Amino acid sequence: MFPAPELADIVTAAERLRPVARRTPLVESPILNEALGFRLLIKAEVLQFTGSFKFRGAYNRIAQLSTAERQAGVVAFSSGNHAQGVAFAARLCGARTTILMPADSPRIKQENTRKYGAEVVLYDRLTEDREALGRTIASERGATLVPPFEDPAVIAGQGTIGLEIAAQCRELGVTPALVAVPVSGGGLLAGIATALATELPATRVFAVEPEGFDDTGRSLRSGRRESNPPGGHSICDALLVPTPGETTFAINRRLAAGGVAVSDAEVEAAMVEAFRHAKLVVEPGGATALAALLAGKLETAGQAAVAVASGGNIDAALFAAALKRHAR
Amino acid sequence: MFPAPELADIVTAAERLRPVARRTPLVESPILNEALGFRLLIKAEVLQFTGSFKFRGAYNRIAQLSTAERQAGVVAFSSGNHAQGVAFAARLCGARTTILMPADSPRIKQENTRKYGAEVVLYDRLTEDREALGRTIASERGATLVPPFEDPAVIAGQGTIGLEIAAQCRELGVTPALVAVPVSGGGLLAGIATALATELPATRVFAVEPEGFDDTGRSLRSGRRESNPPGGHSICDALLVPTPGETTFAINRRLAAGGVAVSDAEVEAAMVEAFRHAKLVVEPGGATALAALLAGKLETAGQAAVAVASGGNIDAALFAAALKRHAR
Repeated sequence: MFPAPELADIVTAAERLRPVARRTPLVESPILNEALGFRLLIKAEVLQFTGSFKFRGAYNRIAQLSTAERQAGVVAFSSGNHAQGVAFAARLCGARTTILMPADSPRIKQENTRKYGAEVVLYDRLTEDREALGRTIASERGATLVPPFEDPAVIAGQGTIGLEIAAQCRELGVTPALVAVPVSGGGLLAGIATALATELPATRVFAVEPEGFDDTGRSLRSGRRESNPPGGHSICDALLVPTPGETTFAINRRLAAGGVAVSDAEVEAAMVEAFRHAKLVVEPGGATALAALLAGKLETAGQAAVAVASGGNIDAALFAAALKRHAR
Repeated sequence: MFPAPELADIVTAAERLRPVARRTPLVESPILNEALGFRLLIKAEVLQFTGSFKFRGAYNRIAQLSTAERQAGVVAFSSGNHAQGVAFAARLCGARTTILMPADSPRIKQENTRKYGAEVVLYDRLTEDREALGRTIASERGATLVPPFEDPAVIAGQGTIGLEIAAQCRELGVTPALVAVPVSGGGLLAGIATALATELPATRVFAVEPEGFDDTGRSLRSGRRESNPPGGHSICDALLVPTPGETTFAINRRLAAGGVAVSDAEVEAAMVEAFRHAKLVVEPGGATALAALLAGKLETAGQAAVAVASGGNIDAALFAAALKRHAR
């Protein structure tokens, strides 16, 4: 455990990110709004550099390293969005980067991570322990490990999305009933909930997870960290963490209003609606919050709601298959 | 012919549009920038309301109608983006709308146009004259015809994109070598070129058209309005106008630097790159400018360039087919 970041840490992170990160737009569709009976605002974090929110937390962490630490480099393990976020953030900071990726991770994600300048080390998911491997590389090289969520600077970086949502809602003159957030380890939720507790205090913040991987939702209900049963399957490859982070859960338990789970079919339908009406490419894990609102799983009582579309890194073949199933 | 709109008209249009239109972002990808050797800024007009730039010109025209004129209603003919832009703009202005659409136009475009509140009148493209039909309905009802490009208020509305590009480039500290614009009748190009002549005077503005429909490019070279040979085919359904508008060509002849044509294959590749690296859904006609830059058809000498991604209204099946051909 580490101390939870506070609003001031998120404000500092926002200042750090201002010259390098994109202030992603809130996108909406009159057709979707009319069909739903409330105003649906999509926080289009798919338009963030590297195609997901992960760049924010990674940059906020790496930008605080000393020159010597940057020279020693950074290490991260991830099969996807965190890898790309760390690789690009490290490159902007002039830090050498090693990313541990499963040997069977999608070729396109390995390629992109290399394109952002990282050294990719492949490991066997079945026989090797990635955390031990990461610690070994970190200690051999004196490199800094950038965790995907259990880190105060990473959480504060993701929390800048909450500051932007609050500012953009003020610009629109809207107080949303709720903000729905895709959840894996809980860092994005913890950061956003921390920002909104002060900035939009009347707005409730919800976790949205894939069915079978709703550890945070169940943990919020039971009051302790629950784990997912083994053997589950979901198309949301970015959201398959087995249990909430220790600190992220401590924050979310205090600040989140609850959690709901969505099915693969609901996620796929949400991806297609985002394609059709918002002109955005959203990956399965990035579409859970949108799916919950489109499927009526979160009650807004006619008030506006925000869905964070957290990432858009999906292979063309998978996206094409989803579209084909919904073509008409 | 009518007098060409001036910068002041575009500034007034921008004030009119500010409360209702989206200031669409300039999107870029570090991976694309590195592959190209210059900074590629995509003006993401696919994120405009109704999924294309057409809303801007339509709103700027309809918002200037009197209460009596709004009550008498507006008429437009279009199979796609102009239809949706006029329908939504008219609804915001409280004007009754009739849209003439070919009976064989895509069902989804007919559906969306109705969802924006318009009455859709279908006609037979082979046996009926849509312009005569439009004039008949306009005169019977006393309704105002909103032309797709030959109108000073429509051109000024599209020109607000040029003002935004100039302001956004200033925010980034960039002077682009060129701005590439998809062209059909030439209203978007005329508006943008008018704005940039003052706002970014060192930046050249280019027309990008589909092969076989490069009437504006050929007209710019010959100095008079050329027509496309009959029987051509292109996937760019939004860009199939047979000849440049009279006034739009007079403006573009004075202000545009030239025109290039792109193949269906280049357009499709650009759509897939936009999907992969910008997370944007771009329709074929909206992707020509991007295609010209990605295919190296416009020389930037390493300087930044802007591609206007003008629309994103494409059927799921067509987009899926394009992705499948480029999946790897």
